[in-house]
Amino acid sequence: MFSPNAYADRRKALMSMMESDGIVVIFGNEYSPMNYEDNIYPFRQDSNFLYFAGINDAHHLMIIDLNEGNSKLFGNDRSLDHIVWMGEATSMAEKSTAINADAFADYQEGLNEIRSAAHRGIPIHYLPPYRHDRAIILADCLGKSVAEAQQGYSEELCKAVIRLRSIKSDAEIKEMEIAVNTTRDMHHAAMEALAAGQLEADTAGLVEGIAIRGQGRLAYPCIATVNGEILHNHHHHNLTQEGQLFLLDAGASSPSQYAGDITRTFPVSTKFTDFQKDIYQVVLDSQMAAIAKLRPGYRFLEAHLTSAKVIASGLKDLGLMKGNVDEAVAAGAHALFFPHGLGHMIGLDVHDMEDLNEDWVGYNDEVQRSDQFGLRSLRLGKELEAGHVLTVEPGLYFIPALIEGWAAEQKHAEFINYEAVKQHIDFGGIRIEDNIAITQNGYRILGDPIAKKIAEVEQLRQG
Amino acid sequence: MFSPNAYADRRKALMSMMESDGIVVIFGNEYSPMNYEDNIYPFRQDSNFLYFAGINDAHHLMIIDLNEGNSKLFGNDRSLDHIVWMGEATSMAEKSTAINADAFADYQEGLNEIRSAAHRGIPIHYLPPYRHDRAIILADCLGKSVAEAQQGYSEELCKAVIRLRSIKSDAEIKEMEIAVNTTRDMHHAAMEALAAGQLEADTAGLVEGIAIRGQGRLAYPCIATVNGEILHNHHHHNLTQEGQLFLLDAGASSPSQYAGDITRTFPVSTKFTDFQKDIYQVVLDSQMAAIAKLRPGYRFLEAHLTSAKVIASGLKDLGLMKGNVDEAVAAGAHALFFPHGLGHMIGLDVHDMEDLNEDWVGYNDEVQRSDQFGLRSLRLGKELEAGHVLTVEPGLYFIPALIEGWAAEQKHAEFINYEAVKQHIDFGGIRIEDNIAITQNGYRILGDPIAKKIAEVEQLRQG
Repeated sequence: MFSPNAYADRRKALMSMMESDGIVVIFGNEYSPMNYEDNIYPFRQDSNFLYFAGINDAHHLMIIDLNEGNSKLFGNDRSLDHIVWMGEATSMAEKSTAINADAFADYQEGLNEIRSAAHRGIPIHYLPPYRHDRAIILADCLGKSVAEAQQGYSEELCKAVIRLRSIKSDAEIKEMEIAVNTTRDMHHAAMEALAAGQLEADTAGLVEGIAIRGQGRLAYPCIATVNGEILHNHHHHNLTQEGQLFLLDAGASSPSQYAGDITRTFPVSTKFTDFQKDIYQVVLDSQMAAIAKLRPGYRFLEAHLTSAKVIASGLKDLGLMKGNVDEAVAAGAHALFFPHGLGHMIGLDVHDMEDLNEDWVGYNDEVQRSDQFGLRSLRLGKELEAGHVLTVEPGLYFIPALIEGWAAEQKHAEFINYEAVKQHIDFGGIRIEDNIAITQNGYRILGDPIAKKIAEVEQLRQG
Repeated sequence: MFSPNAYADRRKALMSMMESDGIVVIFGNEYSPMNYEDNIYPFRQDSNFLYFAGINDAHHLMIIDLNEGNSKLFGNDRSLDHIVWMGEATSMAEKSTAINADAFADYQEGLNEIRSAAHRGIPIHYLPPYRHDRAIILADCLGKSVAEAQQGYSEELCKAVIRLRSIKSDAEIKEMEIAVNTTRDMHHAAMEALAAGQLEADTAGLVEGIAIRGQGRLAYPCIATVNGEILHNHHHHNLTQEGQLFLLDAGASSPSQYAGDITRTFPVSTKFTDFQKDIYQVVLDSQMAAIAKLRPGYRFLEAHLTSAKVIASGLKDLGLMKGNVDEAVAAGAHALFFPHGLGHMIGLDVHDMEDLNEDWVGYNDEVQRSDQFGLRSLRLGKELEAGHVLTVEPGLYFIPALIEGWAAEQKHAEFINYEAVKQHIDFGGIRIEDNIAITQNGYRILGDPIAKKIAEVEQLRQG
């Protein structure tokens, strides 16, 4: 947790940004049922609640009164019965003090205040309810249908929260470095432990265990696979084989819930093959070229295109692409190999503030999202500011279904040597990803260095 | 997965049990959002859907037509776009064949069939929607409020499903042994790795990692703590200290989602203290005494009381309780130390079928749940049958808040030596738990033996 005043300052800043009157309601999360009500998933607090109200326990909410200029925390103290089963807990009085709230009361009173405000026609500003239990509670309090409650969130509030949360304080960046350093341990342990004949699940279990030991958890479901070309592959049932590549996209959350998000790709054998080295170096070059340009005022869209051009140029050198590189990238031909965006904001959420609308986070009136295949998946396009933290994660994949589909219609055939590409159709995929803070003059890669150059990776693979 | 006919046979049995007409709707689970819609918890399929429809993927449902006597599976095939991101998947045609369904169609058609049945006044039988997204979908299909949809489940269907799922087949018990044997690896690894000065999270991460390596996950949030007296303690932030006890209540699910649920308690030092040994032996004796009685026709309530009497008798020998043991247990005095139930059914759920109503699972007209403190937490009381699988998990705890509360009002003072008890108020807690199948003639402890006797535990602690 941060200092009590840090939370109070964030709420004050929010109040000053909101032009509307009325109340702002920030819901904390409830426990989430797995296979019956009381068998629950690991608790994950709502990120906006963590930002403004800090408390990392279920069943709380905060009401910020824009007219009165004060903040009230709602939640329940534990009964003796609860203490027997769950242990002693911090009291509501202590929680309220810890975040410098102006007052506190039982959870039910919070719901009553929302109901009363709705009844009196006072504007109620809330964020999009991405969990269904919250939508049901909101609908009940507002006297609306669930669908109306889901759609009735406040654009003004979302945009104000995005402005605040987009700029990370030094204290927040310190927390993010904790997350990245636990993530570093995960990746290095995986590189050291991998061997042919293991299950992908062996690596998945190894790294998730380390995240838990770090007193956080995984910030997102990990990708740990010999099929790196399947971009969101969450199955871990394959056996690793000599000669394959292993792609690990896994990040820990810090105990304070800030996310790390790192990808490394390494050989199942102790060394890369020559062709794997060639492709790896193209991806690494494209990442370094993009990172080198990062600074306040620079559009992240340009970083994406820089990365894409290095990839297209590298593939041309390898005989897999052809023609003019700038034209190929403008046409989107490189997206056969690099079909996703270069990166995204990261903070309390791995895709930071995605619940508040991805386009409001990553784009604005000047920089709008493209609808071109590949580029349309870029989550962040707008100008960078000091205090932004983001990922840079180019990748290069041989996706059989996509290659066969494009080849059949000879899509972008002036830029792609399909015959050469098909010879590598079972290559898999390589992605390299780091977490980067934008500073006053440039950038800083977060955390201690994680093995990334070919020689560094091969050294860890050889123990 | 089981054979296609196994699933068809279960559905046929269900149809023959249902006296009502109409349709039975079994919903599969959706992905569950963590901190925004697309950052999801590990997928856990609904256990009833797994039982009747076997498919372990999100966004499916099954409709069993009681009038026509057939079963239809609903779900969507993947588009090319989905294949690029998620990889190839089993087709709906293959899924339908794998579970011997009579037909299959898109998910939306399933919802349309429910809507159409609701519109025509055909009875629609469904199970309690413990997840909120399901309640919202049901409300929408049935044209009811969410609260009405939550309450409108079918008691007849719940009871029929309970009758079926309560009796485990040999094939199911084989799956449960896989879960228990992975769980055994978790507990033995924890006993070997524990040392003073570690975080509880080190053990939590170790065992969760092993569960994932087993291609399942944890069947429930693990308890890994030096504060074993906090019964549902899910925090892991304490540092272990010499002389403390460590309680590990953790179970893997098998890849097929059957649960293991094992508890062991071991010393942070390499050996138990004499007093720890005394208490440990009482718990172990009480577990063995209860297990020895298990057989078809025996009421599990009696096993609970058997266990309670061994505990009371043992505590009397140690000078912590006094008076007549049978009277003490009848009065509930032992519940100061053993405030929970002896065990519960286990299967696809760790508390099997808890979503279908605990009292319908564990009690009947002859054996009703007590309202006495301690005994009221017993989930299973009724007569056992061959094919039941259950846990036996007595425990003995020194819970400061409870001891101080009871001592202040001198509750059951004729049976409890409060002065002696208070000398051990920081003892912690011990629980020992195994998973047991009821056979034709008695019982069988599932899985390979897990270190349990004092000498066995100390041997593992000494490496």
